[in-house]
Amino acid sequence: MWGGRFQGGPADLMREINSSIGTDKRLWREDIEASRAHAAMLGAQGIIPVEDAAAIEQGLAAIAEEYSEHGVAEDPALEDIHMHVEQRLTEMIGPAAGRLHTARSRNDQAATGLKMFVRGAIDRALEAIDRLEAAILDRAEQHSATIMPGFTHLQAAQPVTLGHHLMAYQQMLARDRSRFSDARRRLNECPLGAAALAGTSFQIDRNATAATLGFERPTANSIDSVSDRDFVVDYLHAAALCSVHLSRLAEEIIVWASQPFAFVTLPDAWSTGSSIMPNKRNPDAAELVRGHSARIVGDLLALLMLLKGLPLAYAKDLQDDKAPLFDAHDLLAVSLAAMTGMVAELEFDAARMRAAAAAGHSTATDLADWLAGQAGVPFREAHHIAGQAVAAAEAKGVGLDQLGLDELRAIDPRIGEEALDRLAVENSVGSRTSAGGTSPERVIEAIAAARAARRSE
Amino acid sequence: MWGGRFQGGPADLMREINSSIGTDKRLWREDIEASRAHAAMLGAQGIIPVEDAAAIEQGLAAIAEEYSEHGVAEDPALEDIHMHVEQRLTEMIGPAAGRLHTARSRNDQAATGLKMFVRGAIDRALEAIDRLEAAILDRAEQHSATIMPGFTHLQAAQPVTLGHHLMAYQQMLARDRSRFSDARRRLNECPLGAAALAGTSFQIDRNATAATLGFERPTANSIDSVSDRDFVVDYLHAAALCSVHLSRLAEEIIVWASQPFAFVTLPDAWSTGSSIMPNKRNPDAAELVRGHSARIVGDLLALLMLLKGLPLAYAKDLQDDKAPLFDAHDLLAVSLAAMTGMVAELEFDAARMRAAAAAGHSTATDLADWLAGQAGVPFREAHHIAGQAVAAAEAKGVGLDQLGLDELRAIDPRIGEEALDRLAVENSVGSRTSAGGTSPERVIEAIAAARAARRSE
Amino acid sequence: MWGGRFQGGPADLMREINSSIGTDKRLWREDIEASRAHAAMLGAQGIIPVEDAAAIEQGLAAIAEEYSEHGVAEDPALEDIHMHVEQRLTEMIGPAAGRLHTARSRNDQAATGLKMFVRGAIDRALEAIDRLEAAILDRAEQHSATIMPGFTHLQAAQPVTLGHHLMAYQQMLARDRSRFSDARRRLNECPLGAAALAGTSFQIDRNATAATLGFERPTANSIDSVSDRDFVVDYLHAAALCSVHLSRLAEEIIVWASQPFAFVTLPDAWSTGSSIMPNKRNPDAAELVRGHSARIVGDLLALLMLLKGLPLAYAKDLQDDKAPLFDAHDLLAVSLAAMTGMVAELEFDAARMRAAAAAGHSTATDLADWLAGQAGVPFREAHHIAGQAVAAAEAKGVGLDQLGLDELRAIDPRIGEEALDRLAVENSVGSRTSAGGTSPERVIEAIAAARAARRSE
Amino acid sequence: MWGGRFQGGPADLMREINSSIGTDKRLWREDIEASRAHAAMLGAQGIIPVEDAAAIEQGLAAIAEEYSEHGVAEDPALEDIHMHVEQRLTEMIGPAAGRLHTARSRNDQAATGLKMFVRGAIDRALEAIDRLEAAILDRAEQHSATIMPGFTHLQAAQPVTLGHHLMAYQQMLARDRSRFSDARRRLNECPLGAAALAGTSFQIDRNATAATLGFERPTANSIDSVSDRDFVVDYLHAAALCSVHLSRLAEEIIVWASQPFAFVTLPDAWSTGSSIMPNKRNPDAAELVRGHSARIVGDLLALLMLLKGLPLAYAKDLQDDKAPLFDAHDLLAVSLAAMTGMVAELEFDAARMRAAAAAGHSTATDLADWLAGQAGVPFREAHHIAGQAVAAAEAKGVGLDQLGLDELRAIDPRIGEEALDRLAVENSVGSRTSAGGTSPERVIEAIAAARAARRSE
Repeated sequence: MWGGRFQGGPADLMREINSSIGTDKRLWREDIEASRAHAAMLGAQGIIPVEDAAAIEQGLAAIAEEYSEHGVAEDPALEDIHMHVEQRLTEMIGPAAGRLHTARSRNDQAATGLKMFVRGAIDRALEAIDRLEAAILDRAEQHSATIMPGFTHLQAAQPVTLGHHLMAYQQMLARDRSRFSDARRRLNECPLGAAALAGTSFQIDRNATAATLGFERPTANSIDSVSDRDFVVDYLHAAALCSVHLSRLAEEIIVWASQPFAFVTLPDAWSTGSSIMPNKRNPDAAELVRGHSARIVGDLLALLMLLKGLPLAYAKDLQDDKAPLFDAHDLLAVSLAAMTGMVAELEFDAARMRAAAAAGHSTATDLADWLAGQAGVPFREAHHIAGQAVAAAEAKGVGLDQLGLDELRAIDPRIGEEALDRLAVENSVGSRTSAGGTSPERVIEAIAAARAARRSE
Repeated sequence: MWGGRFQGGPADLMREINSSIGTDKRLWREDIEASRAHAAMLGAQGIIPVEDAAAIEQGLAAIAEEYSEHGVAEDPALEDIHMHVEQRLTEMIGPAAGRLHTARSRNDQAATGLKMFVRGAIDRALEAIDRLEAAILDRAEQHSATIMPGFTHLQAAQPVTLGHHLMAYQQMLARDRSRFSDARRRLNECPLGAAALAGTSFQIDRNATAATLGFERPTANSIDSVSDRDFVVDYLHAAALCSVHLSRLAEEIIVWASQPFAFVTLPDAWSTGSSIMPNKRNPDAAELVRGHSARIVGDLLALLMLLKGLPLAYAKDLQDDKAPLFDAHDLLAVSLAAMTGMVAELEFDAARMRAAAAAGHSTATDLADWLAGQAGVPFREAHHIAGQAVAAAEAKGVGLDQLGLDELRAIDPRIGEEALDRLAVENSVGSRTSAGGTSPERVIEAIAAARAARRSE
Repeated sequence: MWGGRFQGGPADLMREINSSIGTDKRLWREDIEASRAHAAMLGAQGIIPVEDAAAIEQGLAAIAEEYSEHGVAEDPALEDIHMHVEQRLTEMIGPAAGRLHTARSRNDQAATGLKMFVRGAIDRALEAIDRLEAAILDRAEQHSATIMPGFTHLQAAQPVTLGHHLMAYQQMLARDRSRFSDARRRLNECPLGAAALAGTSFQIDRNATAATLGFERPTANSIDSVSDRDFVVDYLHAAALCSVHLSRLAEEIIVWASQPFAFVTLPDAWSTGSSIMPNKRNPDAAELVRGHSARIVGDLLALLMLLKGLPLAYAKDLQDDKAPLFDAHDLLAVSLAAMTGMVAELEFDAARMRAAAAAGHSTATDLADWLAGQAGVPFREAHHIAGQAVAAAEAKGVGLDQLGLDELRAIDPRIGEEALDRLAVENSVGSRTSAGGTSPERVIEAIAAARAARRSE
Repeated sequence: MWGGRFQGGPADLMREINSSIGTDKRLWREDIEASRAHAAMLGAQGIIPVEDAAAIEQGLAAIAEEYSEHGVAEDPALEDIHMHVEQRLTEMIGPAAGRLHTARSRNDQAATGLKMFVRGAIDRALEAIDRLEAAILDRAEQHSATIMPGFTHLQAAQPVTLGHHLMAYQQMLARDRSRFSDARRRLNECPLGAAALAGTSFQIDRNATAATLGFERPTANSIDSVSDRDFVVDYLHAAALCSVHLSRLAEEIIVWASQPFAFVTLPDAWSTGSSIMPNKRNPDAAELVRGHSARIVGDLLALLMLLKGLPLAYAKDLQDDKAPLFDAHDLLAVSLAAMTGMVAELEFDAARMRAAAAAGHSTATDLADWLAGQAGVPFREAHHIAGQAVAAAEAKGVGLDQLGLDELRAIDPRIGEEALDRLAVENSVGSRTSAGGTSPERVIEAIAAARAARRSE
């Protein structure tokens, strides 16, 4: 390919280290699609003969069909997917194939194909997030009034509704969608035509190729076009944060499935057993989702470190952009799909959750709130009184809601009978009607709002 | 603060590990501003007496003035900035201060103050990027026709204009602005009123506090409100990628300032010397900018790892969000400012750059392009012919542009006299007029377009 | 300091970005100690007058006393700790101070001080690990026969002893000690005398300064001496992995302290409460330890990324080695100390642990083992039979150990009466006497062995 | 495999996410070797019939031969390499195969195989480092007296010898060897026999299997045995730091090969060309080595993050240990081999290096040193005088070594004639004879010492 100047061939190891076909053959669809757009434009602009452009397009279409059926046959002597396609084209249509590379370089060609892949990856992520969000909305609706302990510090804090808890994840996913969408919008400029780094003297029409390939416009600077990999980093950032969200839900499923909690049972379809212990039912899928987040974050780091201190324009270091990208892509896809399956099929034990919600004196805040709101006690003082009531309940070995009015009044005489009502978990949950609060009515509203927002997107 | 239930006090070490005042006192402005908005709302809603609300507001205003003048006096017994402010308020206005914490928790209070800080940090970053961009546009304009070698793989590739090269960084900065703006838009929902995690039974008006504090709306889910730190991660991602861009420019300045290149001289104001070598003039500022990118990326990873696998809602791990955030903030600020100073004051040696641009047979592509464009030779063949010309020039020990027409025709008789013109670097650069290309006219257009886009933002 | 060649002074911002005194003043002890050794050697070798050497040494001793009492007074015009000390020395002893910098550079001076700090940091880590290990050994001894559920996948797997579980952490800590010790041994070569990068023509005695400062030998290559930061990376690696170990124990404490588990209670001294919820008792210290591991890993990555692609020898990027190092150092120290306190004072609820150990059919493996060992059933088949027994127990709603012999024989007639014994958790635990197994006798042996190994170190 | 208790099968996606055969089939050698050792021990201890043990061993040997010839035929229904081997064994020898899994679990089986792989990976790394070190020693010997500019901050600092510069990398590699060796020693304890997590009641002989498999001893704690992945992290740390060292040398090769430097030429065998620019000769191999360091560091991060906060004992997250390990392993192998090839075949341009060494007034320190050493001027003052001489040379547009004695004496009359000699780069280099210094004699000694140390290892 670059033979004119070279006398010796590459060392065997050089050939091996330099070959990327094992990785980048995955981009054959994007490479061929971009080459077809380029050839059509070259023909339309009169830069190459129209009949050559037509032959190239037909040849490329035939190669696409071939790859689609049989895969890409790797030839170690042809270092990357670009050379594989061009070589195959030459076999098919002869020397006219040599005109395809007019007014372009592998530098802009590779950037274009990679951008198209990332754009597709974002679209796939958006669809998968959408499916998970739908599953969460359905389960939240079923459990808009199911009571569970709300935790902070993994300590029982206040009773909440399971629907409300699940809807916290819907919020994370909504931000994930927003983040992927921003990344998509920012990347959607076409590098094709930047050539090696300087642009070209051929009268190309970059608006035409950009439009054909679904980009908003051509990139504005040819040097930036071939050295930029921001779009990969933006994608990896969105993937990493999304996977971290999934890891939080995975952690909760794992903890909830543990015998002492037993809030949930994973169906057989989402469990595995042990090769030695016949009693085991392991939440492997959730653990894998949790683990995958570490690898995706590792991929993000790799890209940022790869780019650090690289002078312009293209450097071969950038070949290492693809392995982390593909790794993160595949791990995110399987994580989102597995989590969708788990969320849809988890069996919740509402009775155990309700019982746990009542433990830990979880309505102590309600007592303090009552004192502050109804008896005019400054909240700090009210908090202290409720704390003494908790201590009294603990000393007696009962729940706070099992103390009698007399016992409470012995602590502070301002405590009225209505305060007792507040100590029931249903009443506690029902009272939290502030915007974004956990009461069933607010949860139902939130689900409706989320569904409306999804429809209008 | 939480005394009612507790009998023993914390261990000394527990007090130390738990204290965050050394770090979070930096948030006093945000904490006080949010508390004032909360108190005003509590008063307006009749949740606390209007006169108490007024006393609280006046007290908080006085504390702000005090801190502004004298700084925050740290008391190790009061673990964080929230308790410092409340304690000081109690000293000032007595028990009414105890009403401030009605219908809120430190969980939503901390999230609110932190979001306000990050929002301000984004605004500061946008301004600093704007200044650097302005400096780049000015230098690019001065050097729209200055010729330098364009590099790929740090090998002379094709001649380009210095203005065009600098404008590649303008493109990166434009994406940085877009990324920070997206993060700002995404975070601008107010968590105040989420209370501990469940919302509250008090009749609060979250729209009012959100509006007072400049948020678009209240957050939609109280559990997510106190456990979400996406906005810190989004900020750190934007900061990390921006700093990686700066590291690339820093690397170039360092390489260009090295004696064998000598493309640039850093003025004394941006250089340092050596304690032992009297001859040194070191580009320390550029090296520090390059180094800082590593620390900012480290901060990003710390946050992602911190969040991994955390169950909802708040966990104390989240206290470790602030040190990485502040570290990245300060490093980015100094990096952007230092780079702005360097870009404005770098002295370019146009003659050395021009000479280097002509070396390395850098117009060989132009010869190949001429063959493909004017003589109808398929590009692959044209590339091969130009490669033989390079080999001939090398064998003779001269530049490609110093070969005679006879010598070129001996390689391929299709090479015409006009092809010789293409081998001059000025002509090469001038010919690259494709959209986004390096010719001076395109650079001038790009600068005008960038300035217009900045004005319209 | 480097005035001869320079005409203009640094820009204000340059002074600010370049100043490291705020960070590196922490190294004043090491800097002064190394300077004293250097001066003594210069005098002994006759490179500087003996009386000047003596004056320098006395001056440095006085400065050390001054700093020890009053701290280092920062002067922004003197960029780092090296210049602060030299300037103060000049004030004290006049021009003779100017002889101290003979045959050295800040490059080797900084590397030497930093190595001494890291060496001290390792020693402090080893001591802190030692204290935590001692606490673990004590608690393991108390609980060598306390039965708890052993988990895999956080699912009850098999009964184990709490002592055995704790001793798993002792093993991790033993590896941490080994890792820190290896790092210490590898770093203990003295860079002093490498000068800027090339060595010096003065007849210095590097063996002497190395010995005085407690190093095994001088470093072997002067260029490597000033560009190497491996020792910081090795330290950060050991710190990161140690903190990850602590994060695992912290996670267990947090899960065990959660109400549904309630295996442990953290005493008041290691708990915090809530500003809003009077019922809370939060394991903040454990959460902070867990969170700190993320920041220490971030520090490690910052260093690796900092070094990537740096040409030899010294570059100013290396100034960014200190902030991550100090950050990790302080976080590790507080994490080890807090964990030591928690381990020593955790209250275990043996009854709840014992009850949980019996749940989940946790002795199903024992049944399978009996079938394989006593009845000659191939293990795979035995595993299947035990799995059917679990299914039968689940269908009946009882524990596996509550099935009668008849019920078991209905599943497989080869099950004998002695098999029933195996199903009691005490017998299960007692039977696991293989080397490294969980039986109380093995745990007691392991504790003794660990104590013996510690004594012999 | 775990059928007894389960009624439904796994979901398709669950099967997919859970399957690791695509990754872990790479461990078939280790898995079979460990199984053979286990079977032999079970037979020798009388735990399974001797004839079954023999049948198992023969079967496993046959499978090894089969895999060696034909590879592992993946069956998606058998999730990992362990099940593939066992299933194949069952096909070969029938039900006796079911006895192999007596007294072990996949947990200890997987840990054992993985440790064996890492141990082998370390041995391969040590050999590859050895080859690179040998190449460096050879080139350093050839160039022990070749003069080049020593750089700090990529500014010409002082002349050094190329041999000395290369030997700095030998020092890094020596530390890399030490680091890998430490990791090997620390990991070399055998987890086999830990079973699921608790040990076993069978009378196994763990010393026997440990010895058979080349381990120093069995691991000491069964819970730690199955949850520990420190050995992977230690390996990745050593690999990451080694690759960062290689990235520094790669950066230097890239800069040195750039036309303005032209210190080195990469032979055709280690260069690539451009698809568009016929003039290019790119140092792709060096760039790939530099880029690979980013991915290896990403792999290290992934492992640390994976382990963070994982409760004991085994969790499925740990399945994600292998992909980063294999990735780092392969990238390190190719990086070391490519660097060995490049170092061996780089062509240095000694004349250009010598000329560059004389530029930049690089012997100014020698003038200062002469003043301090011979004329008794305090170094600080001597440094200032030499700085003025540099300024004078710059003003005149000549090198410092081209100033006449009169001109120097006009700056300071104490400058003597012998000082002029010091300004020649050969004399400067020759004078730096301090231990570890750059003079040719020291370099030759250092090479001899390194070779002796290698022989004695």
